[in-house]
Amino acid sequence: MSVYERLRALQISLPEVEAPVAAFVPFVRAGNLVFVSGHIAKKHGKTLAGKLGEQFTTSQGKEAAWGIAIDLLGTLQAATGDLNNVKRIVKLLVLVNSVASFTEQHLVANGASELFSEVFAEKGPHARSAFGVAQIPLGACVEIELIAELNEG
Amino acid sequence: MSVYERLRALQISLPEVEAPVAAFVPFVRAGNLVFVSGHIAKKHGKTLAGKLGEQFTTSQGKEAAWGIAIDLLGTLQAATGDLNNVKRIVKLLVLVNSVASFTEQHLVANGASELFSEVFAEKGPHARSAFGVAQIPLGACVEIELIAELNEG
Amino acid sequence: MSVYERLRALQISLPEVEAPVAAFVPFVRAGNLVFVSGHIAKKHGKTLAGKLGEQFTTSQGKEAAWGIAIDLLGTLQAATGDLNNVKRIVKLLVLVNSVASFTEQHLVANGASELFSEVFAEKGPHARSAFGVAQIPLGACVEIELIAELNEG
Repeated sequence: MSVYERLRALQISLPEVEAPVAAFVPFVRAGNLVFVSGHIAKKHGKTLAGKLGEQFTTSQGKEAAWGIAIDLLGTLQAATGDLNNVKRIVKLLVLVNSVASFTEQHLVANGASELFSEVFAEKGPHARSAFGVAQIPLGACVEIELIAELNEG
Repeated sequence: MSVYERLRALQISLPEVEAPVAAFVPFVRAGNLVFVSGHIAKKHGKTLAGKLGEQFTTSQGKEAAWGIAIDLLGTLQAATGDLNNVKRIVKLLVLVNSVASFTEQHLVANGASELFSEVFAEKGPHARSAFGVAQIPLGACVEIELIAELNEG
Repeated sequence: MSVYERLRALQISLPEVEAPVAAFVPFVRAGNLVFVSGHIAKKHGKTLAGKLGEQFTTSQGKEAAWGIAIDLLGTLQAATGDLNNVKRIVKLLVLVNSVASFTEQHLVANGASELFSEVFAEKGPHARSAFGVAQIPLGACVEIELIAELNEG
């Protein structure tokens, strides 16, 4: 199965890239690496705001991370023109808006990691750091930044 | 206009690179990428300490981020020998020392992003992640790390 | 002295790579860069949990960072097959689980930075960002992510 067949099997349609809320761009390519800006959690176009351990449970946070991963796929589509040009998902940085006692950032982050592994098969498993932050722009519950490697040329 | 002409037009003079406060170096080049260490907010050589949402307003934080961007330019000058060798500002990581309720990290970060876009024109717009952290070394209000791509050779 | 001779002189034996606690891999190589996942503080295989400024002092945190650096060396060994293939330690991202008033993240981070400089000599000094976070998976006191550059081929 190709990347697009797996997306169809998962009933995922790629969103358009949204304009960033501030003075930056959604991605930059440098050599064969694409650096994708931090994407924040949204639902039906609205920021999904709140803290893990307060307004959000671990499983709700994981679902939010899955949703961000879909938005990141839309940005990767814009960056590559064809997701088959992705050689490897390299690294995720997963920021979880956490109260001081919440310690399951890794389980929240799995929502994104598992989607990338499903969609990109052997090219999907990536390095990762996940941790709890004091806040995220617009109060979003999760923010994820990504580095991918592209095929030559 | 060249990078240096735009710096003059903005009345910005590049600072010397300051020695890091700890056991690391201001930048490392790997291939065509330069990884610049996190730089913290300073004014007249002293750490600008405090939290956004407490001692600092959003616009004060944005000004602090602008000041850090100038320090980052000084470090990029040292890294490149000539800022015209910068092919692209690739990514910023913007850490904002935030109380739990402060959600305008993206507006603070714009202070740096806007300066890079002014100085480097079409080479300036970059990928970015901004978020709120629990603290920053020496209590600084903002810390920014940067990746730039250089021209070959 | 080679890297391995310096490790012996420091009485450090490299640990096996531990399986990540979640859906990611310990490292990914892209071109000549190796991106190593965030590694959390452990002692005798158990997570070293607590916050700096509360359960941990700066010097205990520094010791924890030194321990993480040893685990990162184990992962780099697995990534490279031979630590002499490391051309340069490029960058550390050091996350310190901090109460809101703790401002010595840079001193904590030195525990890792100093070890890399000792082990890799002139290839060891690196760019770095260190800051305080609201939490870390499993409550760990410190988490460190690393980028290294390898020799060609």
